[in-house]
Amino acid sequence: MVRMALIGAGFIGSVHAANLAAHPGVEFVGIYDVDGARSTDLASRCGTRALDLDDAFAPATVDAVLIASSTDTHARHLRRAAAAGLATLCEKPIDLDLDQAVDVVGEVAGAAGSSGRPMMVDFNRRFDRDYAELQRAVRAGEIGGVELVQMTTRGPALPPLDYVAVSGGQMRDQTVHFFDLARWITGEDPESVYAAGSVFADPRMADLGDVDTSVVTLRMPSGTLVQIDSVRRIGYGYDERIEVLGSTGMIEAGRQRVGSVTRYQAGRLVTDGMHPGWFERVAPTYRSALDHFVSAVSAGTPIGPTLPEALAAQAVAEAAARSLASGGSETITYPALAAVTS
Amino acid sequence: MVRMALIGAGFIGSVHAANLAAHPGVEFVGIYDVDGARSTDLASRCGTRALDLDDAFAPATVDAVLIASSTDTHARHLRRAAAAGLATLCEKPIDLDLDQAVDVVGEVAGAAGSSGRPMMVDFNRRFDRDYAELQRAVRAGEIGGVELVQMTTRGPALPPLDYVAVSGGQMRDQTVHFFDLARWITGEDPESVYAAGSVFADPRMADLGDVDTSVVTLRMPSGTLVQIDSVRRIGYGYDERIEVLGSTGMIEAGRQRVGSVTRYQAGRLVTDGMHPGWFERVAPTYRSALDHFVSAVSAGTPIGPTLPEALAAQAVAEAAARSLASGGSETITYPALAAVTS
Amino acid sequence: MVRMALIGAGFIGSVHAANLAAHPGVEFVGIYDVDGARSTDLASRCGTRALDLDDAFAPATVDAVLIASSTDTHARHLRRAAAAGLATLCEKPIDLDLDQAVDVVGEVAGAAGSSGRPMMVDFNRRFDRDYAELQRAVRAGEIGGVELVQMTTRGPALPPLDYVAVSGGQMRDQTVHFFDLARWITGEDPESVYAAGSVFADPRMADLGDVDTSVVTLRMPSGTLVQIDSVRRIGYGYDERIEVLGSTGMIEAGRQRVGSVTRYQAGRLVTDGMHPGWFERVAPTYRSALDHFVSAVSAGTPIGPTLPEALAAQAVAEAAARSLASGGSETITYPALAAVTS
Amino acid sequence: MVRMALIGAGFIGSVHAANLAAHPGVEFVGIYDVDGARSTDLASRCGTRALDLDDAFAPATVDAVLIASSTDTHARHLRRAAAAGLATLCEKPIDLDLDQAVDVVGEVAGAAGSSGRPMMVDFNRRFDRDYAELQRAVRAGEIGGVELVQMTTRGPALPPLDYVAVSGGQMRDQTVHFFDLARWITGEDPESVYAAGSVFADPRMADLGDVDTSVVTLRMPSGTLVQIDSVRRIGYGYDERIEVLGSTGMIEAGRQRVGSVTRYQAGRLVTDGMHPGWFERVAPTYRSALDHFVSAVSAGTPIGPTLPEALAAQAVAEAAARSLASGGSETITYPALAAVTS
Repeated sequence: MVRMALIGAGFIGSVHAANLAAHPGVEFVGIYDVDGARSTDLASRCGTRALDLDDAFAPATVDAVLIASSTDTHARHLRRAAAAGLATLCEKPIDLDLDQAVDVVGEVAGAAGSSGRPMMVDFNRRFDRDYAELQRAVRAGEIGGVELVQMTTRGPALPPLDYVAVSGGQMRDQTVHFFDLARWITGEDPESVYAAGSVFADPRMADLGDVDTSVVTLRMPSGTLVQIDSVRRIGYGYDERIEVLGSTGMIEAGRQRVGSVTRYQAGRLVTDGMHPGWFERVAPTYRSALDHFVSAVSAGTPIGPTLPEALAAQAVAEAAARSLASGGSETITYPALAAVTS
Repeated sequence: MVRMALIGAGFIGSVHAANLAAHPGVEFVGIYDVDGARSTDLASRCGTRALDLDDAFAPATVDAVLIASSTDTHARHLRRAAAAGLATLCEKPIDLDLDQAVDVVGEVAGAAGSSGRPMMVDFNRRFDRDYAELQRAVRAGEIGGVELVQMTTRGPALPPLDYVAVSGGQMRDQTVHFFDLARWITGEDPESVYAAGSVFADPRMADLGDVDTSVVTLRMPSGTLVQIDSVRRIGYGYDERIEVLGSTGMIEAGRQRVGSVTRYQAGRLVTDGMHPGWFERVAPTYRSALDHFVSAVSAGTPIGPTLPEALAAQAVAEAAARSLASGGSETITYPALAAVTS
Repeated sequence: MVRMALIGAGFIGSVHAANLAAHPGVEFVGIYDVDGARSTDLASRCGTRALDLDDAFAPATVDAVLIASSTDTHARHLRRAAAAGLATLCEKPIDLDLDQAVDVVGEVAGAAGSSGRPMMVDFNRRFDRDYAELQRAVRAGEIGGVELVQMTTRGPALPPLDYVAVSGGQMRDQTVHFFDLARWITGEDPESVYAAGSVFADPRMADLGDVDTSVVTLRMPSGTLVQIDSVRRIGYGYDERIEVLGSTGMIEAGRQRVGSVTRYQAGRLVTDGMHPGWFERVAPTYRSALDHFVSAVSAGTPIGPTLPEALAAQAVAEAAARSLASGGSETITYPALAAVTS
Repeated sequence: MVRMALIGAGFIGSVHAANLAAHPGVEFVGIYDVDGARSTDLASRCGTRALDLDDAFAPATVDAVLIASSTDTHARHLRRAAAAGLATLCEKPIDLDLDQAVDVVGEVAGAAGSSGRPMMVDFNRRFDRDYAELQRAVRAGEIGGVELVQMTTRGPALPPLDYVAVSGGQMRDQTVHFFDLARWITGEDPESVYAAGSVFADPRMADLGDVDTSVVTLRMPSGTLVQIDSVRRIGYGYDERIEVLGSTGMIEAGRQRVGSVTRYQAGRLVTDGMHPGWFERVAPTYRSALDHFVSAVSAGTPIGPTLPEALAAQAVAEAAARSLASGGSETITYPALAAVTS
């Protein structure tokens, strides 16, 4: 049993809390939140208890922490977890500022290196059943050498503008998941990026210096090309898909619908549509990511995505944001600590 | 080149005429119809000429006839073609009355036997690309032994009641195609049949002693079970499908839609629907059946479905009609001339 | 919160135990099993405790029981639950012997009538997301009047023969789920049944007087026809599907695959296949059925399927078994207590 | 009846010849080819005759010509057809050199303007059933304003290198079809283009200054973004697809398979694959394009795509080729004669 504490009792914290409570390999020690009433309430619904900050990071009673608090606190909690020698599963991003993130990873790597406790960033898409099968097949060589990747990430509605304002923009907030997936699937670090974007959903997006609809092209050192389209507001639900073309075949993780019911009518078929939102689509990936973390912590097996891998994805997002602004292709510079592709 | 004459210039005759005109291996000699104006008109549209009856069956200038006249004339034209030693492609059925059909086949078999000219009944579903692939795979043993077959045959609208009145009823007119397919796919002659039917589309169907919605169960000597549903009037177009379950896998020739366009809307996907009618769905099978006939006549290779095979399918339909009336399972009796399964 | 005890700690008991432990509206009081070690072990894994029989049925501390013990004990536990005035969710069947089942329901109806506690049989397919949507649409009249229903229920492998020997046979053990669904979807009690079956998987099935492959035709009072195929051993996983043809359209709950990954290869596409077994396919339905039960008990809303409905499905299975033996169509006789269709 | 002559008896000429011979609204006057034996042979197979060049362009006996000769002769034949006042259906491109093409269109526009005979370029993808339905729906506003377009064009195998050498490169030869479709679907002329490409199939492609795998981003004046991937050699057949995202929904013309047969095996489903080559996929579009041309010529209704529209697509290809070379985004300059989007 891994004794785990949860940091953060907001929406995503409550998702993690339910998974921690139900996991057979976890002893759910408790929940810390800056708002004590919120942690007490969530704890009571999950059969655990509210913790103060010291208890949440106490190595005598806690083996691992799951950091799901607000983005601006991730770095601080990561430092504390490393200092306490706790294994850590942290929501992305490490820090919205790449330089700050690099600093944290540098410190933490030293601390973690000495303690040997694994630290993982929760890029949960890697734990989607279909993406994992696709990546396994690609890396096993089932389609030969990778030549072209197509990715789609589209959400049903614009997030609240005050969220957008602090999100870091579409590249750093939304597309970054697919920068991580692109590295993970191809096994390469992109060397350059071209991005183009538009504002369709709300003109205030432009005032915030952001876009809601964008396309990105990555070029890998091997010549592999990656296209990603990212849309904040589509009219038909939540939509993700990936296809990977190799030298001997193609593999696709297709669109997912909420069910398999088809209505046959004159001239048309009406089938169940897409998930209404991102959470309905990816909810199982949080459980699978937690499974991976708990298994790896228990068994001492390798964990991922690691903090350096998260830095690498973030570096791609930085260059993509620069390309959106410049209108040209941008070379990607990786910080020294960013992962060689795993 | 096979010199061919067409008998019949009605709707299905005009379909055959266009195919005869376009076929690179056919010299389209001309068209006979009891209504001379109709044959003249069709001939002019297809670049050929109207024939009188003697010219249509003249062995000096004609190698083969395609009989597409009204059902009650098939037997007569088959006898004449056999007497003239012409290869023959005949629309189904040979004759609505099974005894009459047996008589014709007996006579014709003698004549054809002496002349060696092949005679084929146009059970065109056998030439559907998907059904042919399914049958090939099944007979090649790709799913092991056949254990269960599911077939669906559904049309968009009730035929005119005056057609229904002379059609022989749903078993002999509609389901008979799938009796033929069931024999062809499984390679077995069914030994008993159970049928149940209802009238939903128009109460006058019951007055005619017919049904518009029925289900049939066939039992094969090996124990293989076949289910067929036949519907005259569905609300959503034209619909056929077949699935065959074997001991090591299953194979399915699925529903066909008119296109591959999908519209993604909130909560649902709207895709292109089924074909509006039977002709749009099976039009290519008339060309493929003609191809088979012409190739076999030219090369002297085996032809099918033969007249005896058509008798066998008709015998199943007879027993199914008896079962509809009796409410019980009926044993199928095959006339002496009916084919051992090909 | 509904205080619930579980009766039975075998395979299906352990499935229910995990769902009871995770359900936010349930206080999981404990587990009884005839094998104390088994209940103790399961209880420790689910954060609850082992109970003796008296505690499991103690109305002071228990509001409801979930009966998941061996089939031959269902009737006894149902009687005890009724006597104690406990709400009850019982695995099917009530009793393999229809007469015995009728007796139990008669007694229990009296007791439950006085206590007012609801009793439900766990025909879990009703809680499948796709089947529920299909039934809702049909009963809402979205396809007009129901004319034809096609159902498929196929498992990957023959159950152990010693299970088959006590299962009551394919009609009572496997097809009965679809007899219940047919009644629930159409809103009618079938009046007659024809069944035909074969043995393909293992000749010893015939020695047991059972079949492994069968087709059933039900006729409803309105003329609606229902076809069900049931197969014990298929080569390609677990397979269920339902389609319902109405006077104005058709609706289909299609085959389900384990994922949405497609591999494009020369000449073919390879997609994720069917679930390996029944449990992987229907696991979510146990949660949904429990949800329905807990909500209904908490809110006092109607519950179903009720015991009388289960009797009705069982009566259809009895007649189907008779038809398999007689080779003819059989009239279905409903016991007095069997439900008028809900 | 439109009296038509065919120029060119090579592969694509023979495709057109069969369609001309079968078209009920066409009197197929004859075929000219620089190789007289070739035209004689093709004519005999299509029931027409070989023509010399003067007869092919003789307005007394010919209403329209179909130019399907080698690319370097298109301009010359277009000029002659215009001078003779013949309606013209011309294979793309007008001329590989954009300046030359502009010159031709300028001359021809004058001549055609005076004669009033329509001239059309055979961008046959516009006549694909699914693309036409997609375009109709988009232009009818069924998905609101267009925001993002995804297009895929992939062929099974590298063309012969000597063909590649004179093809103008991937942008001008392959992707140009989709530049035309992008303009036609969105109703906008792209203002800039970014392209990136790689060589995977054969290193000699690089020696020819060409790529075999490329991605293109177009930006429309409205902000609409278009992504196109073009691949010369894929391992799984021929593959095209288009999806268009609008402000209120999405519409997709999906991948097409050669059939609807599915084989269910343990753990996987194997379905019919993609078409083996481009011709099998788009063969029907040649008939539909001819239908459009013949109808428009007969009825005097508008025709398209026109020569100026073809110039516009070619201008996009020019800029895309520049972008491949420069590595940056390129502004698209349209010649004066290029169409305002139709």
